Amino acid sequence: MDSWLLELRFKKEILKDSKLSETFMNGLVEAVHLIMDGGRVVFKNNNDYVNQGFTVFIQEPNISSVLIQGTRDGVLTFDLHLLSVVEPEVFDQKVLAFHNKLVKHEGIVRRETSEFEPMGRIKRGRKFSPYERTTTGLVIEHDFDKLVFDGKSSYQTVRILHSMQFGNCLVLDNDMNLSESDLPYTVAITGGGREDYRGKNVLILGGGDGGILHHLRDKGARMITMIDIDRMVVDAAKIHLRGICGDAMDKEEGDNYKIIVGDCVPHLKKFAAEGQKFDYVINDLTAIPISLEPTGSFWDFLRLILSLSIDVLEDDGKYFTQGNSSNMRDALRMYEEQLNKLEVKVSFTKETVCVPSYHELWVFYTLWKSAQS
Amino acid sequence: MDSWLLELRFKKEILKDSKLSETFMNGLVEAVHLIMDGGRVVFKNNNDYVNQGFTVFIQEPNISSVLIQGTRDGVLTFDLHLLSVVEPEVFDQKVLAFHNKLVKHEGIVRRETSEFEPMGRIKRGRKFSPYERTTTGLVIEHDFDKLVFDGKSSYQTVRILHSMQFGNCLVLDNDMNLSESDLPYTVAITGGGREDYRGKNVLILGGGDGGILHHLRDKGARMITMIDIDRMVVDAAKIHLRGICGDAMDKEEGDNYKIIVGDCVPHLKKFAAEGQKFDYVINDLTAIPISLEPTGSFWDFLRLILSLSIDVLEDDGKYFTQGNSSNMRDALRMYEEQLNKLEVKVSFTKETVCVPSYHELWVFYTLWKSAQS
Repeated sequence: MDSWLLELRFKKEILKDSKLSETFMNGLVEAVHLIMDGGRVVFKNNNDYVNQGFTVFIQEPNISSVLIQGTRDGVLTFDLHLLSVVEPEVFDQKVLAFHNKLVKHEGIVRRETSEFEPMGRIKRGRKFSPYERTTTGLVIEHDFDKLVFDGKSSYQTVRILHSMQFGNCLVLDNDMNLSESDLPYTVAITGGGREDYRGKNVLILGGGDGGILHHLRDKGARMITMIDIDRMVVDAAKIHLRGICGDAMDKEEGDNYKIIVGDCVPHLKKFAAEGQKFDYVINDLTAIPISLEPTGSFWDFLRLILSLSIDVLEDDGKYFTQGNSSNMRDALRMYEEQLNKLEVKVSFTKETVCVPSYHELWVFYTLWKSAQS
Repeated sequence: MDSWLLELRFKKEILKDSKLSETFMNGLVEAVHLIMDGGRVVFKNNNDYVNQGFTVFIQEPNISSVLIQGTRDGVLTFDLHLLSVVEPEVFDQKVLAFHNKLVKHEGIVRRETSEFEPMGRIKRGRKFSPYERTTTGLVIEHDFDKLVFDGKSSYQTVRILHSMQFGNCLVLDNDMNLSESDLPYTVAITGGGREDYRGKNVLILGGGDGGILHHLRDKGARMITMIDIDRMVVDAAKIHLRGICGDAMDKEEGDNYKIIVGDCVPHLKKFAAEGQKFDYVINDLTAIPISLEPTGSFWDFLRLILSLSIDVLEDDGKYFTQGNSSNMRDALRMYEEQLNKLEVKVSFTKETVCVPSYHELWVFYTLWKSAQS
């Protein structure tokens, strides 16, 4: 089942004249017959259009339906539903004809900034939804054409969907994590290409898609330790996200790297207890939380990881992490307030980057211990 | 007026049992009452749910309405319409409660890959629509918060909308042209930062937003000539798109540049007649057309510009142009076929680039005259 959502503004004065009003309604119904041959009005709410708005529902049982709603402030919406999947292209053409007829119906349309903008075909009832809401609630339609992997681990739902333009995409708990076209993410969270990793000791928290490990593996680091909790992500990435991880995770231990599948918290505590230090700590665990106050389990987790990471960071080391959408100004501000409250004084910079599959500009942070005064 | 579109898959076997079926329908209506207090069922189509699908329409006159449609193949859709703008946040919470109740209603929901995915609030009847359909028909919601400029020139509708993340955006005929965050576009269409413009003679076709001129003006070119047809675009850009054009168009003539407002075709013909040649021709006029066959006025225009441009190109010169979305494979293939049919033999390379506000990966071409064999 698919739906087309259309809208226009009508001239309210038309409805004040009962004769014109009748013409108006008949015009609408006539236009609708361009879409459905056997459709009949099965519901019409009242005739006091001006004061109460109006509703007309037209149905061709089992094939299609049209809901027309007019509000008192002059907004007219048309929802065209195609219930059966017969000849969708033909239906598209009919919607276009309907659209054109209404736009040309000068008598009812008020020419304003808001033109008659069909939202296009909304795809419904599919095996996987192409729609995602971004962090800031914007609707984005993806060009997914294949569900490549579908699993549920102890931690999250793990899906890999194929996008025609972005390649395979890792989607965790319905949230786009990384696509094979998202190198800018990996570059940003490893310091924007401005760091010299030669001889350095690197810790990656999360990063189960293997992108960071793959990106850094040939940069001459002395040792890279990656700790991700979800075996399912690592295993699925190895097979389906080669455009992200290459062969970096085919073996879980190499000359200069080691992959640990497990919870990073006890490992961080152990490193701290042993006095192990890292030149770079890259926190790829999760975006910073969105909430009205910096409280709750997500923020506690964030502060725990942050403070454990600072504990194991060399004095001249750097900590990289993603923030959130550049539009999430309150969340970013609250995060920065947390940074200023840390026991060890830190300084930070941030950078805004376009990660293709995110459809939102994304903020990344670099932290380092401030020189003690 | 706003709408929320929800969906789930129901177990058809429930409907085969008339008693369960009654329970099912009552459950739905009960859930709907979480959203609307005074709502009553004003239309219900039939009781032969299994064979014919079903429709229930519930209305709170003047405030909200809910259309529930079930198809024979087990897709259940809910369209929740808020007609009045009273307390939209409260309504959001009610939708969430409704959503949760249905998801928990294990008896009716079939657990499949397609989970219960609310598309979020669809914003309707606004002064300007936040929705755009990309070249490939994908729905994208923009974070526009202000209509900065609204005009209609002899050639097109010219709008500048403010996006919270991308800054001001030039929208021509409802098509996103360029935002203040789209430097990657300008870099790509000027050769990806790999060209040395010092001492060169450059021709820009279109480019009325001023981005290319601004980007190249301090790269040491001998002369840059820009020809754009639309005075309204140039004038609006000068004021509202400073993040794109800087001060490049404040004066329309400078030491090493000249802006001509006019049709580029007669100018190209005049340049050719005079034997004027350019080291770089940058065609920023329009994306390559989308059509099933490489015929029609758009393609004729494209071929005309292309052949005139090749006429005025130095033998070792380069021609840059945008192509289209990387997903428009047929259009790109047809364009490349046209290139191979030109009288003067040309070679080309292409590059795929992420232009933030486009929400689609975009292809750019570089052409040059092949060495004659």
